[in-house]
Amino acid sequence: MKAVLLNTSLKKGTEASETEKMLHESARILQKERIDTNRFHLRDFQINFGITDRLDGDDDWPFIFEKIKEADIVIIGTPVSMGDKSSIASLILERLQGYETIKNKKGQSIFYNKVGGTIVAGCGDEGAKSASQSILYRLSMLGFTIPPHANAIFRSDWDNQDTNQTEGEFETKNAERMTYNLIHFAELLKFHPIPTLGNVLE
Amino acid sequence: MKAVLLNTSLKKGTEASETEKMLHESARILQKERIDTNRFHLRDFQINFGITDRLDGDDDWPFIFEKIKEADIVIIGTPVSMGDKSSIASLILERLQGYETIKNKKGQSIFYNKVGGTIVAGCGDEGAKSASQSILYRLSMLGFTIPPHANAIFRSDWDNQDTNQTEGEFETKNAERMTYNLIHFAELLKFHPIPTLGNVLE
Amino acid sequence: MKAVLLNTSLKKGTEASETEKMLHESARILQKERIDTNRFHLRDFQINFGITDRLDGDDDWPFIFEKIKEADIVIIGTPVSMGDKSSIASLILERLQGYETIKNKKGQSIFYNKVGGTIVAGCGDEGAKSASQSILYRLSMLGFTIPPHANAIFRSDWDNQDTNQTEGEFETKNAERMTYNLIHFAELLKFHPIPTLGNVLE
Amino acid sequence: MKAVLLNTSLKKGTEASETEKMLHESARILQKERIDTNRFHLRDFQINFGITDRLDGDDDWPFIFEKIKEADIVIIGTPVSMGDKSSIASLILERLQGYETIKNKKGQSIFYNKVGGTIVAGCGDEGAKSASQSILYRLSMLGFTIPPHANAIFRSDWDNQDTNQTEGEFETKNAERMTYNLIHFAELLKFHPIPTLGNVLE
Repeated sequence: MKAVLLNTSLKKGTEASETEKMLHESARILQKERIDTNRFHLRDFQINFGITDRLDGDDDWPFIFEKIKEADIVIIGTPVSMGDKSSIASLILERLQGYETIKNKKGQSIFYNKVGGTIVAGCGDEGAKSASQSILYRLSMLGFTIPPHANAIFRSDWDNQDTNQTEGEFETKNAERMTYNLIHFAELLKFHPIPTLGNVLE
Repeated sequence: MKAVLLNTSLKKGTEASETEKMLHESARILQKERIDTNRFHLRDFQINFGITDRLDGDDDWPFIFEKIKEADIVIIGTPVSMGDKSSIASLILERLQGYETIKNKKGQSIFYNKVGGTIVAGCGDEGAKSASQSILYRLSMLGFTIPPHANAIFRSDWDNQDTNQTEGEFETKNAERMTYNLIHFAELLKFHPIPTLGNVLE
Repeated sequence: MKAVLLNTSLKKGTEASETEKMLHESARILQKERIDTNRFHLRDFQINFGITDRLDGDDDWPFIFEKIKEADIVIIGTPVSMGDKSSIASLILERLQGYETIKNKKGQSIFYNKVGGTIVAGCGDEGAKSASQSILYRLSMLGFTIPPHANAIFRSDWDNQDTNQTEGEFETKNAERMTYNLIHFAELLKFHPIPTLGNVLE
Repeated sequence: MKAVLLNTSLKKGTEASETEKMLHESARILQKERIDTNRFHLRDFQINFGITDRLDGDDDWPFIFEKIKEADIVIIGTPVSMGDKSSIASLILERLQGYETIKNKKGQSIFYNKVGGTIVAGCGDEGAKSASQSILYRLSMLGFTIPPHANAIFRSDWDNQDTNQTEGEFETKNAERMTYNLIHFAELLKFHPIPTLGNVLE
């Protein structure tokens, strides 16, 4: 099985970020379970804006998309600002939407039998849940399956260093629950893909 | 298998509503597939406000909750006003949240192995998707599985009667896709319940 | 000038709530500025569901609505659960929407020249901003003016008692900024009501 | 007075878009009222990602920001996809947030005394209101004033060409109401800027 983790932080990959810490926790579990895990820090790639399945040929999207297409598990990691996911998270969801009418061999959406989750670095913004619900809804409407609790929120405000220890436990537990549920459903769908009755695209 | 359909319209059950028409379409398919289907028009019941698993003994919640607990499939139907689900949809999600820490026999959330979907009567409000994402997110965070495309939107503006015919097709197709995907996943989880690794409540 | 503060907590008025603490802070400032301030704990009243300007005659809505109609400033206070405002906040916004097409003497919405704000008791839910934006948007689309920073969030997780002191400052400052901006705009609109060009209802 | 209209469509400026049609309607009114009106199709500019007031020196942001800083009225126009504003709308809101702690001469946010509105091309997506509320909330939390009804939604599904005529009236009326209310408040704040009590940044 394969997993792709997309970091949509606005910071370049060389800078530390809470989003990265959470993705790392999730990647650790995926690898322990022997799942082929690819991580991309999207800010370090050039991806053009647009809702289309047409390739421009001048950006890194074809490479990223190929990895997503092969993956059983896709996790989008995002920071939160003012109750919203990052613009790079939006950009990637728009690019995926370009394939909304593309079919798999059985005539369903190409994202069927893939599972999706999201990691959100709230960090005191108090808006992590609006970012989360927007990402999970869009994945779901593209054809991804959303397992229970497929959302891990990093809620610490790093300015209050002294409270991290207890809060770190909360984060770790959430990342763990999300990651294992993603694995459970990816395995389930590997052996029992979604039947075609009622969901074939025209 | 069992399904529960909850109509959260603000109108009393004796008045016609778009939400009811959509739920009817979904119920028809569920029954055709021999699934035991219960429909409740919540406005006709008395349900107290609160986030608690404590029963007051003076309302109809214990009866409704018993049906939800037995169900494999739960569908929440709501009208939309100003980009929001109905207050009765909120009320029912709060009541369900009262059981957030209650465990099934394996120690997981009692909503594990249930699947959830939503039917939203947008009717020209242009806010159906914010209502949808809020309902699906809350179900998902309670432990429900969200299959792909588990959201059917009724977008017709009934004031423009002449355009209904074509739009009716859109609605029927969406209700069908949602309902079949809910059935597929309910069956899947019936025979292959979610393993406990990583998701047991403390 | 007059202000109405609506507490939409699910708890009865006799129980302590974070929402109440924040509303208290705001009321204190309003009263200091000699503004006639009414506070209602809505859970203690009976208000029927519905989007209508028709009065049923068997609930407390006419009394509450009369106070809102007279007010220059309206503040809705709500707890947050799973990224959402309370169902009582939804209920009250629906009741207000019942007057969407009712006109003032100049033919504008009856909510013109009123200002609106919201106090949200996040308390570690990480969803305060989705609750906030939904309330402010609905007030705004009903005709209320939304001054800058008309949103005070109570973000403390009361389980971490030791960190309250610093966080209390954050909350107080936000409640203060919101309240003063509401007062500034209420005064402005008192002396310079919104001209009718472009906004008269048909 | 000055207005800036930002088109955040994903399409290049040479392609027709519903967002552009709506912005055009609004610009027409602004110009009729002799307001100096600047329109930018952001897709045709290079704007780097980030939440910072530091200028990179290698993109067009300084030029765009200078125009926003001078403006009394700012309107963000966006298409909707899957219940969300465009990623370019997100990007621009993030860039504005970079100035969250920058003060005007009186010590308030530099966006005080500016008014904000949004034009959303829903076009059958049924998600226009979630896009709208997110944009208005973020502008509001940055310091913009949000007049009543500062949101114009283009709800037509252009595939149903025959129904456009009646729906066009709805759109025009909404764009008009939004634009005039923005003008009324911009004028009000020109002559009566927001007092500093309670809202000075530290």
